[in-house]
Amino acid sequence: MLQSELFTRTSKTLPKDERSKSAQLLIRAGFIDKLASGVYTFLPLGFLVLNKLEKLISDEMERVSGQRVIMPALIPKDNWQETKRWDNFDALFKLKEENVEYGLGATHEEVVVPLVKKYVSSYKDLPFSVFQIQNKFRNEKRAKSGILRTREFLMKDLYSFHATEKDLDSYYEKVKGSYLKIFRDLGISKDTYFTLASGGTFSGLSHEFQTITEAGEDEIFICNKCKVAVNSDVASKRVKCFKCGKVLKEVKKSIEVGNIFKLGDKYSKAFGLEFVDSKGEKRNVLMGTYGIGLPRLIGAVVEVLSDENGIVWPDLISPFSYHLIQIENKVKKEALKIYRTLQKLNLEVIYDDRIDKSPGEKFTDCDLIGVSTRIVVSKKTLAKNSVELKLRREKKKRLVKIKDLSRVLTK
Amino acid sequence: MLQSELFTRTSKTLPKDERSKSAQLLIRAGFIDKLASGVYTFLPLGFLVLNKLEKLISDEMERVSGQRVIMPALIPKDNWQETKRWDNFDALFKLKEENVEYGLGATHEEVVVPLVKKYVSSYKDLPFSVFQIQNKFRNEKRAKSGILRTREFLMKDLYSFHATEKDLDSYYEKVKGSYLKIFRDLGISKDTYFTLASGGTFSGLSHEFQTITEAGEDEIFICNKCKVAVNSDVASKRVKCFKCGKVLKEVKKSIEVGNIFKLGDKYSKAFGLEFVDSKGEKRNVLMGTYGIGLPRLIGAVVEVLSDENGIVWPDLISPFSYHLIQIENKVKKEALKIYRTLQKLNLEVIYDDRIDKSPGEKFTDCDLIGVSTRIVVSKKTLAKNSVELKLRREKKKRLVKIKDLSRVLTK
Repeated sequence: MLQSELFTRTSKTLPKDERSKSAQLLIRAGFIDKLASGVYTFLPLGFLVLNKLEKLISDEMERVSGQRVIMPALIPKDNWQETKRWDNFDALFKLKEENVEYGLGATHEEVVVPLVKKYVSSYKDLPFSVFQIQNKFRNEKRAKSGILRTREFLMKDLYSFHATEKDLDSYYEKVKGSYLKIFRDLGISKDTYFTLASGGTFSGLSHEFQTITEAGEDEIFICNKCKVAVNSDVASKRVKCFKCGKVLKEVKKSIEVGNIFKLGDKYSKAFGLEFVDSKGEKRNVLMGTYGIGLPRLIGAVVEVLSDENGIVWPDLISPFSYHLIQIENKVKKEALKIYRTLQKLNLEVIYDDRIDKSPGEKFTDCDLIGVSTRIVVSKKTLAKNSVELKLRREKKKRLVKIKDLSRVLTK
Repeated sequence: MLQSELFTRTSKTLPKDERSKSAQLLIRAGFIDKLASGVYTFLPLGFLVLNKLEKLISDEMERVSGQRVIMPALIPKDNWQETKRWDNFDALFKLKEENVEYGLGATHEEVVVPLVKKYVSSYKDLPFSVFQIQNKFRNEKRAKSGILRTREFLMKDLYSFHATEKDLDSYYEKVKGSYLKIFRDLGISKDTYFTLASGGTFSGLSHEFQTITEAGEDEIFICNKCKVAVNSDVASKRVKCFKCGKVLKEVKKSIEVGNIFKLGDKYSKAFGLEFVDSKGEKRNVLMGTYGIGLPRLIGAVVEVLSDENGIVWPDLISPFSYHLIQIENKVKKEALKIYRTLQKLNLEVIYDDRIDKSPGEKFTDCDLIGVSTRIVVSKKTLAKNSVELKLRREKKKRLVKIKDLSRVLTK
């Protein structure tokens, strides 16, 4: 797209009410806008990132055979009462109308379990899994840190249904693998730890994926040897690595970017979700649940990958693949021609065609926005029939002949 | 996908609490599930349709230069008070928490106008338009007719911003053209009328797109000559066609599938959204707003295009392009081979590989679900080295040699 047509703009001023680096950068660069505490609009650039992340996660979920649905946010009080969460889920937003009461979807066990019950009767109907990427609502009292903790956010939640513990265990490992791949694809796996945490139903334990950042609200004990961690909420005097058994002493602040839980029969019991096993006996379905909050994950990526000049997007969720900059208005004709060429190749490109900005301002904006690859067209590069290519994450620049550009970018 | 793996199933029983044909068919075929009055889950088949419609509409909005964003559903009371809609918007869901009150996004002028105000100061910043495809919440007292009128629904809303009335008028015509194209693409344009209605801010009038169906809650006066209509809410003793002036007598029940409004300066005044024109004078920005409710549009398509056997999806939003049916389990090997071939061609196919269903049951399910093209593999067709191809909307069948199938389907 043409940058001159983008209705948003970058800003030099630090937003006063945001403390985390990710919120400051995302707001200044024009990815998000704060409507109220814990409530944000995704602006055009932010939408593109969110949309790419949604696609990346959705593809992974389909790879583990997740069937995609969309469940509503208006969940009747009755459903929450079945699981006793109407009174026990602190962050539940309650909507009380004359004729009806809803709890706004903070999680969706209360919808998916009664839904699935309509279709499951025999072990032959199992296993399967269902996921959605849909807005969650939570009344976070301490909504701070920008999109790292919000009251409304896009979440991927996957629910799996099994006849046996063995099957649940093996699926759980599969999803763990998917999550690790997602964090690897986003370039944050070095800083992301598979973490033992409290909260599971089987054993009182669950697993989280925690990304180390100063903006995080959690604390984890790290095992550098095994590259795993233990959440400080797993109360114990001496915290030991659950892999090598070593006593852990190094503590880091971190943010939970994903979690996987074995729910066992907790919710299937509450709703009477049963099946007849191969011996003809009735049993409760076993469940797993697996979540990723998309805005938070984007925030974590920005926390980890940004530098002093701005955001450094990983290729897969960069709002565009290329940021094409025309340095002088005199090279407009050539720059526009390159823009059209890239468009014809179906490459995603934002073209800084603004005529009222200095080269310095353009470079500053480009670094702040953080598109993964920059292409510069100037009188200097044109003198060599070339453009200048630079990856956002590297300092190195290189000249590429214009006649070779298509080949270089699509190879 | 393999139909045997789909966690939902079709049902023969009519849902008792649904009166509209579309709701009955969509529920029986496994596209949607009712959670509560006016609140539905989109099941895997329904998600695919919704997703395709979202893509179709989004592409059209980009063609009219709409910049895509996502605004929140949690809109602070203050914003609603600026426009006096906190007290005057009947269907507003109000969320009252200890520390904060929100009106759940029933429409988004209250968010988009203050947002845009941050970026607009001069006529040079205009025109532009912003859209989103995001969940709306409305406390519909008479939530009935399935997904034709719900309390929570995915909506495309586009907002345009202009310096002059002339510019607003010309953009309005552009969007009208987009809407007509969308209804044409969906195969409902014969039954969809461009309709004069009440509700605009400039003249007290607006335009709706009304699709004729018995399940509709509106009544329109039709001009058969001009193919336009007047909503009965435009109170008048003698309703005249706004094109040819003829007095209109034919009344039909219909459902609004889209609307376009010229808002003028109503909301820009409320929020002080001003710009400096080319003569240096301050003026209010002029606005248009353009909506399509996606579930309702899907419901209208089903109302219009279904037949006595089930849904007849138009190609563009058919959950799959092909429904491949293996008649006897004995032809499984050949059917699976064809399935793999179609997958390799990136064609979207659902393969009825179920071994416990009779051919009759498979055909009945196939017609009910309504995928646009059916491919049958049986001993009979294989004897001729062929499969049988049939469009859902036609009775005609034809045999195609298996060796020619790839070529026929991708031409």
